[in-house]
Amino acid sequence: MPSDATVPQPAPGPADLVITDVTSLVHGPDGAIDFRPGSTIVVRDGVIDFVGPVEGTPVPAAQVIDGRGQVAMPGLINCHTHSPMVLFRGAAENVSTVDWFNTRIWPMEVNLIPDDVEVGARLACAEMIAAGVTTFADHYFEMDRVARAVDETGLRANLGWTYFSSQGRAGFDTSLEFALSHRDAAGGRITTSLAPHGAYTVDDDDLRTTAAAALQHDLLVHIHAAESRAETRASRARRGMTPIAVLEHTGLLDARVLIAHAKGVVQEDLPLLARARGRVGVGSAPKGYLKQGEETTPIRSLLSAGVAVGLATDGAASNNTLDVWESMLVTALVQRVEEGDELWMTARDVLGLATLGSAAAVGLAGRIGSLAPGHQADIVLVDLSGPHTQPVHDLAATLVYSARSADISTTVVAGRVLMQDRRLLTVDVPAVVADLGPRLARLTDTSHGTSIQSYNAY
Amino acid sequence: MPSDATVPQPAPGPADLVITDVTSLVHGPDGAIDFRPGSTIVVRDGVIDFVGPVEGTPVPAAQVIDGRGQVAMPGLINCHTHSPMVLFRGAAENVSTVDWFNTRIWPMEVNLIPDDVEVGARLACAEMIAAGVTTFADHYFEMDRVARAVDETGLRANLGWTYFSSQGRAGFDTSLEFALSHRDAAGGRITTSLAPHGAYTVDDDDLRTTAAAALQHDLLVHIHAAESRAETRASRARRGMTPIAVLEHTGLLDARVLIAHAKGVVQEDLPLLARARGRVGVGSAPKGYLKQGEETTPIRSLLSAGVAVGLATDGAASNNTLDVWESMLVTALVQRVEEGDELWMTARDVLGLATLGSAAAVGLAGRIGSLAPGHQADIVLVDLSGPHTQPVHDLAATLVYSARSADISTTVVAGRVLMQDRRLLTVDVPAVVADLGPRLARLTDTSHGTSIQSYNAY
Repeated sequence: MPSDATVPQPAPGPADLVITDVTSLVHGPDGAIDFRPGSTIVVRDGVIDFVGPVEGTPVPAAQVIDGRGQVAMPGLINCHTHSPMVLFRGAAENVSTVDWFNTRIWPMEVNLIPDDVEVGARLACAEMIAAGVTTFADHYFEMDRVARAVDETGLRANLGWTYFSSQGRAGFDTSLEFALSHRDAAGGRITTSLAPHGAYTVDDDDLRTTAAAALQHDLLVHIHAAESRAETRASRARRGMTPIAVLEHTGLLDARVLIAHAKGVVQEDLPLLARARGRVGVGSAPKGYLKQGEETTPIRSLLSAGVAVGLATDGAASNNTLDVWESMLVTALVQRVEEGDELWMTARDVLGLATLGSAAAVGLAGRIGSLAPGHQADIVLVDLSGPHTQPVHDLAATLVYSARSADISTTVVAGRVLMQDRRLLTVDVPAVVADLGPRLARLTDTSHGTSIQSYNAY
Repeated sequence: MPSDATVPQPAPGPADLVITDVTSLVHGPDGAIDFRPGSTIVVRDGVIDFVGPVEGTPVPAAQVIDGRGQVAMPGLINCHTHSPMVLFRGAAENVSTVDWFNTRIWPMEVNLIPDDVEVGARLACAEMIAAGVTTFADHYFEMDRVARAVDETGLRANLGWTYFSSQGRAGFDTSLEFALSHRDAAGGRITTSLAPHGAYTVDDDDLRTTAAAALQHDLLVHIHAAESRAETRASRARRGMTPIAVLEHTGLLDARVLIAHAKGVVQEDLPLLARARGRVGVGSAPKGYLKQGEETTPIRSLLSAGVAVGLATDGAASNNTLDVWESMLVTALVQRVEEGDELWMTARDVLGLATLGSAAAVGLAGRIGSLAPGHQADIVLVDLSGPHTQPVHDLAATLVYSARSADISTTVVAGRVLMQDRRLLTVDVPAVVADLGPRLARLTDTSHGTSIQSYNAY
C-alpha cells in the first residue's frame, strides 16, 4: 500500500508497455506545459493509463523501456501534408510559386499511378516515424493506397481525398466515398476528412455540397484557404470577399474545418473565425513559406480569435522534409520577427502548439496530444545525452532550440513501438528506396505538356 | 598505366587516408559548386592530395573509409562563436537583447574561472565535431584554455582573446600576447586574432592600437560591429558615423578584419567595405537574430561590395546550438524573405557561403573550405540513406533543405578522423557533462549583483 494514499498509483495487474524513469511533458489544467521527472508511463490497450512517480513495486509489463536521460512527449502531429509528395522532394527548386505549380508539380502529378502513391506514402511514413510524428493529416489522391501504408506502418492519420471542381461531381463523390469507407480503419487509427483543394479551385456549389455532407456525416473538412495575402487580395478583387468569407458564405465554417496555411487571414476574417471557434483549426508550415520568400501564418491573431493552431510541414516538394520538430523551431523563430516582439512565442508556447494546439486542429482534442490518462498512447522519447543538448538550464528551450528530430530515440503509436533506439521496426527503408528508384525518371518527365490543374490564385 | 593519360591520377605510394566511392562536393574555377560521384579522396600529411575517379589499382592507405551512399564536403566553418558559452545554453531565454546582456549573461560571466572555460570549450568542441564543424573562429576569455581543448580534440580554430577598453591597456596586452604566443599552435591548426569586443565597447584609441598591431604582426582582427540597425542608429546619433565608419576611421579596415553580424550595415558603409575587399569578412549567425525578433545580415549587399561572407552560430547562449548546418538552412530561408525574392539564395549559393565564403571570412582562403588538392584535409561525410533525404533529385537542395548535421557520419580534420560512424573519437562526452554538472549553480548565480560590463549600444 502506498505510504500516502492521496498520491494516485497505477492500477494493479500487468500492463502492455511501461516506460520507466523518464521526464514527462505534461499539461496543467489550463494547458500550461510542465515537466515531471522520475515518471513512469503505463500503457494498457493502446491507451495511457498512468503518468507519474510509482511508489513501491514496479508495474509488471509485457514490454519495458528504460527512459533514463530522456524526455517523454506526446508524439508530434503533422497538421497538413501531402505525404506521397516525398516522391518530388527537391524536384521543384528555385522557381516562383506560380511556376512551382504550373511548370513543375502539377505537370509531374499527371504521371502518378496508384502504386507510386503507395510507395511514396510508405517512405513518408518512415520519415515521420523517425522524426517522432505519430499523427498526420494528409490531403492527396489515391488515398486508399495511403491508408494501406498507414495501416501497415502503424501510424495514426486523418486522410482526405483531394478534389477540384474541374473534375465535376466525381471529385466530391470519390472524396466522400473514401471518407465514409475508411473512417475508423486500421483499428481506429485512421480518421477521415472531406478534402476540397481550395477556395480558388473548388466552386461555391461544391463547397456548399461539401459543408452539407460534412455536417450530415460528422466529417472534418480539410482545405487550403487564405494560403497567402496574394490569394486574399485576388479573392477580394474577383468576388468581393476574402477566402475565409467564402468558407463562411458556403457554410463550411458551420462544419468542422482544418485550414491549411491561413497566411492570408486579415482583420475582417477574425470575427468569422471567432464565431466558428471550437470547430476551426489551422495548420501552419512555416519553412516552406520562408523558402518561397513569403509571409507567415498570423498565429497570434488566430489564437486571439479562439482558432486552434497546429504545426505542419506541407508536402516535401515544398518543405523538403516532413519534420514537425523543424516546424517547431522555425515557428518559434519566424513568429518573433512577424510580430516584432522578442518576448512572444516562448519555447513553451511552441510546445503548446505542437501538442494540444495540433491535436485540436486535426479534430482529435482529448484523444491525442497529451500524456494524460485516457489519451491514446502516442509517445516519443527524446534523448538529451548529445553534446548539443547539454547542459539543460531550461528544458523547454532545450527541446525547441537545441534538440532536433534526430534526437528522438523511440516512437510509440497506440501503445505499439514503431521505432526503438532509432531503429524503424515497421518499414524497410532500403527496400522502399529501391522500389522508388526506377519510378523517378517517369515521374519527373513533363514532356507530355499536360497538367492536373492550372494555378491562378493570384 | 591509365587508359587515358590526360586523366590525372593520384601519386603512387601509400597514403595516410583514402575515402573511396564517394560523391564529392567540388568547386569550379569560378567557385561554382559541382558534385563528382564515384570519387576517391587521397590524403597525405594532413593535406588533400587527390580528388576524383581512380582507374586501376586502388591507392594503398593506412586508413580506408568506404564512402558509398555518402557525400564528401569540406568541413563546415563556424565564422563567429564564443565556444565556452555552451555553459549558458538555455540560461538566458525570453529576455530582450538588453536584458540578455545586462541581467543574464554579463552578470553570469563574472562567475567564470579558467577551468570552467576549458570544460565549456571541450563540450563545444564535441558538439562541433558531431555537427561536422572542422574550424571555428572563437572570441572569448581565458583563451589559453580554449586552445588546450582545441589541441586535445583535434579541431582547427582561429582564437581571439576578447577585450574591452574598460579593462585599460591590460585588455589589449593580454589579447596581443595570446595571439602571438599561440599562433600556429597545435601543429598549425590554431591561428589567432586580436579580439576587441566591439565598436561600442572599445574606444578609438584602443581600436587604433589594435589596427597598428594587426598590421605589424599580420594578425586578423575579430570584432563585433554593426551588430544591429539599432547600433548603427545609436552610433550615428552619438558620434555622427556608423560603426563601419568607425572601423575605417580607426584604421581597422586597413588590416584583415572579421566582422561578426554586420546586420546594421547600411548603404553608406558599402563603399568603405568595397575599398577593403580582400581583407574584410563577415560571419552571419541568423538563428539568434530571428530568436531576438531582429533583422538579418544584408548578405546580398555585402557580396556586391566584395565582402567575404561566411556562416556562424554565435555562442550557444543566444543560438542554443553550434550547428553551422542549421545556419545554412536558416540563412537560405531568411535571406529570401529579407530580399523579398523567391529566387535569391539558392541551395548552391548557401553551400558557397558555407565553403569558400567562410574560409575567406576567417582568413584561411586557399587552405580550407574546398576539397581541392593542396587544401587541408578537413572533410565531412554526409550519409544520405535516411528516409528524409530520399529520393535525391537535386543534391544541393537535399543537402541544404533535407539533410541536417545529424546525418554527418564522419568528421576529419587535417587528415585525422575525429568522428567515425557518429562515434566521437577525441572527446568523452559523458565525462565532460559530469565535470560540468557541479559548476552550473555557481555559474548561473547572479546574486553578487556585479557584471563584467554594461550594455548600452543603443
